[in-house]
Amino acid sequence: MERGRSLTLLLLLTLSFLLSPDVNAGKILVFPIDGSHWVNMNLLIRSLHARGHEITVVRTSTSWYIKEEASHYRSITVTLPEAISIEDQDFFVTLLVNMLTIQREGGGSIMGFVNFYTEMLSCLSRIHQQASQLVVEMFENKALMQSIRDAHFDLALVDPGLPAGVLIAHELKLPMVFNVRWITSGESHFVVAPSPTSYVPTSGYAASNKMSFMQRVKNMLYYIFNTCIDKLVVCPHYDRLVERYFGSDVNFYHLLQGADFWLMRVDFVFEFPRPTMPNVGYIGGFQCEPSKPLSSELEEFVQSSGEHGFILMSLGTLVKGLPVEISSEIAAAFAQIPHKVIWRHVGERPNNLGNNTLLVKWMPQNDLLGHPKVRAFVGHGGTNGIYESIYHGVPMIGIPLLFDQFENMVRMEARGAAKVVEAIQLTRENFLQTIQEVLHNPSYRSNMERLSSLHRDKPVHPLDTAVYWVEFVMRHKGAAHLRTESYKMPWYAYHSLDVICFLKAVLFVLLAITVGCLRFLCLRLCGRRKSKQE
Amino acid sequence: MERGRSLTLLLLLTLSFLLSPDVNAGKILVFPIDGSHWVNMNLLIRSLHARGHEITVVRTSTSWYIKEEASHYRSITVTLPEAISIEDQDFFVTLLVNMLTIQREGGGSIMGFVNFYTEMLSCLSRIHQQASQLVVEMFENKALMQSIRDAHFDLALVDPGLPAGVLIAHELKLPMVFNVRWITSGESHFVVAPSPTSYVPTSGYAASNKMSFMQRVKNMLYYIFNTCIDKLVVCPHYDRLVERYFGSDVNFYHLLQGADFWLMRVDFVFEFPRPTMPNVGYIGGFQCEPSKPLSSELEEFVQSSGEHGFILMSLGTLVKGLPVEISSEIAAAFAQIPHKVIWRHVGERPNNLGNNTLLVKWMPQNDLLGHPKVRAFVGHGGTNGIYESIYHGVPMIGIPLLFDQFENMVRMEARGAAKVVEAIQLTRENFLQTIQEVLHNPSYRSNMERLSSLHRDKPVHPLDTAVYWVEFVMRHKGAAHLRTESYKMPWYAYHSLDVICFLKAVLFVLLAITVGCLRFLCLRLCGRRKSKQE
Repeated sequence: MERGRSLTLLLLLTLSFLLSPDVNAGKILVFPIDGSHWVNMNLLIRSLHARGHEITVVRTSTSWYIKEEASHYRSITVTLPEAISIEDQDFFVTLLVNMLTIQREGGGSIMGFVNFYTEMLSCLSRIHQQASQLVVEMFENKALMQSIRDAHFDLALVDPGLPAGVLIAHELKLPMVFNVRWITSGESHFVVAPSPTSYVPTSGYAASNKMSFMQRVKNMLYYIFNTCIDKLVVCPHYDRLVERYFGSDVNFYHLLQGADFWLMRVDFVFEFPRPTMPNVGYIGGFQCEPSKPLSSELEEFVQSSGEHGFILMSLGTLVKGLPVEISSEIAAAFAQIPHKVIWRHVGERPNNLGNNTLLVKWMPQNDLLGHPKVRAFVGHGGTNGIYESIYHGVPMIGIPLLFDQFENMVRMEARGAAKVVEAIQLTRENFLQTIQEVLHNPSYRSNMERLSSLHRDKPVHPLDTAVYWVEFVMRHKGAAHLRTESYKMPWYAYHSLDVICFLKAVLFVLLAITVGCLRFLCLRLCGRRKSKQE
Repeated sequence: MERGRSLTLLLLLTLSFLLSPDVNAGKILVFPIDGSHWVNMNLLIRSLHARGHEITVVRTSTSWYIKEEASHYRSITVTLPEAISIEDQDFFVTLLVNMLTIQREGGGSIMGFVNFYTEMLSCLSRIHQQASQLVVEMFENKALMQSIRDAHFDLALVDPGLPAGVLIAHELKLPMVFNVRWITSGESHFVVAPSPTSYVPTSGYAASNKMSFMQRVKNMLYYIFNTCIDKLVVCPHYDRLVERYFGSDVNFYHLLQGADFWLMRVDFVFEFPRPTMPNVGYIGGFQCEPSKPLSSELEEFVQSSGEHGFILMSLGTLVKGLPVEISSEIAAAFAQIPHKVIWRHVGERPNNLGNNTLLVKWMPQNDLLGHPKVRAFVGHGGTNGIYESIYHGVPMIGIPLLFDQFENMVRMEARGAAKVVEAIQLTRENFLQTIQEVLHNPSYRSNMERLSSLHRDKPVHPLDTAVYWVEFVMRHKGAAHLRTESYKMPWYAYHSLDVICFLKAVLFVLLAITVGCLRFLCLRLCGRRKSKQE
């Protein structure tokens, strides 16, 4: 039972899928999220385009990664009022800088905690304000909406982390497929399947699936906290629009939960096993592919590392946000190891950089991770980088910075395939120690290689899975038979609270009658005995 | 988006799967259930054998369908004490006859209800007594166990409806895959994933997923009832053995829930959508295949039906159990229609049989269901027949007799693809009316054809899915990353009851302190005012 066998199978399956004739192409309206989310979505729509489908992407005029023109899609560009529009890249870099400052200055104090969440919530509200404004701009532009209607789209493909597309799809009565990891209230599984907080860690809480009592208490509190944020900070932006455009009997959450199919950017070598639903397909790591040869310049640098090999470092789309005091600690640690280092770095060059370290503005990350000489990957714990690391079996050192990156790295640590250094506590000593640990303890690599072999062993490649279900929903104009509509029940009925109350009441009445009867009998018997004695 | 396209794809996928080289064959120990369950299991092990794996089937000396020798497996035959051994076929036919008599005589009375469940529970206990005795006979036969150990099996493939294999696999420390629809407590989903009774109908209760309040109450009662039966009637057979052979710290249910992968004989064109788990694969209808040409004799009979076409009738493995008074009502109804009828019938020939009806002892059911002239299928609602009907898009008339057949037919009725006649209330008039309804209302056929097109549209054929995951578990010696072990938590922790109590207590203390402080302040203020006034 060798890996080679499953790989051959996978290649054959993929080949046959690509060779399959495209009988009837469809028209797909795409609502992506910018930044790292777009990297994934772009790959999916590229595949859909290659299968003959016509792709139209909705973007804003200040979009960061999403270009107006590309060979595989046309776009609809919406201009938002200047006061609301966000320059994505700068916005997130500023957020990162502020968050790091708050954490370093506030430490574990209550004021630090309050500042942290105030900053985070105001950022969250700003992003959703922009997304909801996109809906208003589109709905109010009658000519635009008519032209979209006239285009007769077959499907809306939506990243529901920013759910503008959910409202537009409802207005256009389009079947809807999600390319999803997060929704407004956090991890998307939570509204699809019943997710007991006793073993399913909540978004925002960096815990494993095996929690102590106090961790379970915290997990429950985080769950309540997330729900409150969602209800009070995020959803009001959309509730307002749903009521305005669809009337008060339509519920924003029902629109969200009514998606026909959820393409979940999750794989269970990464995520802990948890309940799911028949209309969920797992495509985590669908962007991974075998590495291609490096440029001769890079290959030469890499080969110069000799038997030691090299380390890769990248902090993804937030690369600009790392403060120089942290960069220079990292540079100092790197200077002390015999390995070569390739570091994707933008901004002020650390002046203590070692001779072994090459700074680059961009690098072919996947090709480098697939190189035989790579020894470890230093990343921020975004899922794209993590899945590439898993795919190539390269152990990780995580420096999580924002959002889900902390939780992501907890998952990799729980598998024994990574070690984490907190950015605000990073020193040259503890960072060096962590690198040494990951490089010299063979368990990290062997655990990552085990994950890699599990991850690659699939009956269908995740990207083909994604394309298949998008086409399935188009073919059948939905996937109602895979989707429960139990979310439309009142909450007390869904949780059987009414049934439990009813059964308790019946039990109580029966008990009361029984006790009453027994008492009556006792009294009668005692009465008779007394009268006999008398 | 035509069906042709997905079919081409499916064929290519299947072809590539079959062509994939078998690098390293494994040894599989199979614990099947006899009767209709064996029909499925046999097909799966035939495919596994064709892929080069070595199959060993454990059977009893009185097995009904499972032969001692076959070209695709060898067998281990265990002889049970005569007092415990069941002659399967006669046992179930007698059960059916008794159940029908009880239902007809008892009607809806309380005594009828009591007799019905007494009969059912005593049958259930007998079956599990036999299965648990199989474990004892194997464990006590040291030579047999040693020879099994020496054979170095790679995997146990178990139908856990009768969970003898679960105990043997645990003893042998083998990874375990279930080919499953039922476990001891009913529908297997209930112990794999959280299954809210508000929309998931319980085993034994024939309701849809959209229930009224009183239906939800009944569903909850059935759930409690099933759990009690399981704890009091079924599990004691195995608990006793688990304690005897593995000690008191091992729990039978944990062994059952610890299976690496569940191949669920379910498809969501049939089952209502419900929560599931990452270590569940759906293989419902994996036995279905395109029809082959009929024998010239049958083809001639079928062609003689002219434009009317023909109806098929079969009651599956319990074909012998239908009382003659019901058979003759069915015969009388058939005699009144212009269609031809092919009826799989064993036992006394109804004397009022029409000229249009052909009685046969066996028939190529799949080939007949795939014939262009077939108009409807009269069945008992066993899942094998239902999936064949779905596959070929043939509307059904159901006469459910035992076990899950009532629930199965409710599912087909809910899809608008079948109509049901209760066996004990069947008359020639209502049966004829039902046939006419299904034949002449085109919605039944179009609904069934829609189900067929959804059912056939899959990225991988369900049989290939089954083979893939069996091999996956062998390759990786388990599938721990797909399986939650939350079932090992104490029940109060799993349901977060301890966390909820703790948080309520904290809330109460905080409230008490706040109220206390306020009261103290009030008293002080009032006291000051009084002293000022004085």
